Amino acid sequence: MSKTQPARGMRDFLPADVRKRNYVIGIIKEVYESYGFEPLETPAVENIETLTGKYGEEGNQLIFKILKRGEKLDASDKELADLALRYDLTVPLARVVANYKNELPKFFKRYQIQPVWRADRPARGRFREFYQCDVDAIGSSSIIVEAELCAAGNRILTQLGFDDFVIRINHREILYAMLDAVEIIEEKQTDALVALDKLDKIGSEGVLKEFETRSIDKDAANKLLQLFNQLEDADSSEILLRLSEFVGNHEKGRQAINQISQIIELVGLKSLKIDASLARGLSYYTGAIFEVNVPDLAGSIASGGRYDGLIGMFCKEQIPACGFSLGLERILVVMEERGMFPKELSDSSADVLVTVWNEESISESLKLAADLRKENLRVLVYPEADKLGKQFKYANSIKIPFVCVLGETELAENKVTLKNLQTGEQETLSREEIAAKFK
Amino acid sequence: MSKTQPARGMRDFLPADVRKRNYVIGIIKEVYESYGFEPLETPAVENIETLTGKYGEEGNQLIFKILKRGEKLDASDKELADLALRYDLTVPLARVVANYKNELPKFFKRYQIQPVWRADRPARGRFREFYQCDVDAIGSSSIIVEAELCAAGNRILTQLGFDDFVIRINHREILYAMLDAVEIIEEKQTDALVALDKLDKIGSEGVLKEFETRSIDKDAANKLLQLFNQLEDADSSEILLRLSEFVGNHEKGRQAINQISQIIELVGLKSLKIDASLARGLSYYTGAIFEVNVPDLAGSIASGGRYDGLIGMFCKEQIPACGFSLGLERILVVMEERGMFPKELSDSSADVLVTVWNEESISESLKLAADLRKENLRVLVYPEADKLGKQFKYANSIKIPFVCVLGETELAENKVTLKNLQTGEQETLSREEIAAKFK
Repeated sequence: MSKTQPARGMRDFLPADVRKRNYVIGIIKEVYESYGFEPLETPAVENIETLTGKYGEEGNQLIFKILKRGEKLDASDKELADLALRYDLTVPLARVVANYKNELPKFFKRYQIQPVWRADRPARGRFREFYQCDVDAIGSSSIIVEAELCAAGNRILTQLGFDDFVIRINHREILYAMLDAVEIIEEKQTDALVALDKLDKIGSEGVLKEFETRSIDKDAANKLLQLFNQLEDADSSEILLRLSEFVGNHEKGRQAINQISQIIELVGLKSLKIDASLARGLSYYTGAIFEVNVPDLAGSIASGGRYDGLIGMFCKEQIPACGFSLGLERILVVMEERGMFPKELSDSSADVLVTVWNEESISESLKLAADLRKENLRVLVYPEADKLGKQFKYANSIKIPFVCVLGETELAENKVTLKNLQTGEQETLSREEIAAKFK
Repeated sequence: MSKTQPARGMRDFLPADVRKRNYVIGIIKEVYESYGFEPLETPAVENIETLTGKYGEEGNQLIFKILKRGEKLDASDKELADLALRYDLTVPLARVVANYKNELPKFFKRYQIQPVWRADRPARGRFREFYQCDVDAIGSSSIIVEAELCAAGNRILTQLGFDDFVIRINHREILYAMLDAVEIIEEKQTDALVALDKLDKIGSEGVLKEFETRSIDKDAANKLLQLFNQLEDADSSEILLRLSEFVGNHEKGRQAINQISQIIELVGLKSLKIDASLARGLSYYTGAIFEVNVPDLAGSIASGGRYDGLIGMFCKEQIPACGFSLGLERILVVMEERGMFPKELSDSSADVLVTVWNEESISESLKLAADLRKENLRVLVYPEADKLGKQFKYANSIKIPFVCVLGETELAENKVTLKNLQTGEQETLSREEIAAKFK
């Protein structure tokens, strides 16, 4: 007998799960479309070269690789795989932009909601198949893009019922300017950012240790940590002022501070705050970066940033780009824990059950169902002739709100008994009345 | 530079493609839900043992296998793969039914619309990643299930705009009874069905050859082909009568003929016809089988049948099941060729473009966009400040119907010029008037 569990780190979604997922995805789509984003879908499977070398060494190892087919695989064949499962939605987007340059509009605003796969160690809230909800604007360097992405993200979370999230924003060039200010040399700056990125998780002590391991000047680290400490409770305008002082005449740094200040003003939302310690792990970011957090979840529920260099890995042109990704699984975890889903998503999605009295009356039940469907009702016909008691028991078990009984008496009198399972009320109506009743 | 094409046999779906796909999927979902089916989703990746041995030798070879991770793969290691990509949606359903027996309702009616992967040789209309739209009813042996599946399939195709499809129905037991009638021994019956299944494609001559290759009595084949020939233009009731004569006192055969007769009567649709030569390739079918065809496409656009034995491969209990699968890609091919999609799916999904005059007026453009979004409009803000001519050119290129111009004059007077790109009409309105205009 075959095993019946899904593969490790993968999940089956039973109807109530799917309904909850679709509820969230529906709101995400609706808001993104209201901001003029268009849907894109790419294959789950990519040529392996498309993915390798894009996510760093750690990412590379998490890619699911697909065995070559057909040919006999030689024992000495080192290249056993030619295809791989999509690791994220950003690299496929970059490939698509390069491939369809002449077909796509000058500015391509796309959203993409699809699963990705990573051979990560499964843990609470960490799966090997999970959905990303990405939104990206390609072709513009203007801060209009950053402002609209923040506004759309804010809108989605608000619509879902979140009221305590914070969108933290920073800028890669502010980070580099700070690192310059404390005299960390260019060769060590990426390492320093990787260490700083962990501040939330490992605290100041941890960051200091990471700096030591990577042979970065501890004094520099201390100066940065001291700054972050001072900025902790300050508001955005105060932080921007302090940062300006800290980076001094650093030209790119000043420009970046100015940009962030403009974005914050344009968006005009309380939920959007600058956080000078926000670094983001991925190396392809080049400008503004974001991360969205809620108090009751470690890690972010959304993140993104500007990456003006990635598409250039697939075509000669450098095409500016900026994007934002919502973590569907984490949003679902928090919403489930907080009880944020509309109650009806847990129940059967059908409106009414039509009973079946005996083999001879099947056609009557099917006819009634067809009539009710014309009134846009979702109608479940009990899928065999059986005792009415059993049919009611089934209706209760799937939490369907109404039952239309076609029993012996009803059939003889060409009537229907309509029972409301929530109130227990019931009334016997003619066939014509029943459709009108539901209107 | 990395390659930019998708992997062989896989496709990218640009926005207009996704909109067309979602249009069809939306109708399929709506109809299935109106018949009381609930959504299910399973992982793309399954344990390899879940899939192997379920699709026959040919199917086995088309399964995409995923390389083991982490451990160093030994050259002599024959078991290089532990996971595989989903090959269809029926086997995962059987696994799910076995795994969640205690959580699922007694009758489980589910639909599932997800991609599957097969390492087939790509050809016109044949891809390595393609969607299946499956609907199955688990737990009932009643013909109510078959009748509802036919009615739902008919409804979907009608809603999509098809008016020339035929739902062909037959029954495995009728086929066996016919084979018994012409004295083909049991051991050869599966081979005979495989050959008969190809009648559409290879004609009588071809079938005869296949019988010869498989050492099945040619006389038997001739008798069957003669029967099919006689039945070709007959209507369903005549065919049923002739079949009854042909199978004589064969008990299972007579029962099956009776069942099909009842199903046809219950459904009461002209599009549903018995076809005694319909065999269906897959070996797991045990009862009624269906196939849906349109004149301008070789091969079926939907198919299905009853498979009362498959779930038993995953659990001790034999649980009856019957299902129907719509071939999304084929439906899309025919709809595209016939021009059956609503025209607007090809255009940008946004309703209006808001122009951006200069850096200082960005906030005004964003404010106007926010106001328009409150009226449930999908609003694209031009993503940088630029010459108005360029912004209009862009609006035309993406076929957006309206442009809201916030130019120098409009900004000075706190007004907006609304231009209808289809008619060329334009008028200048106050900020308050513009929202009302769209209502």
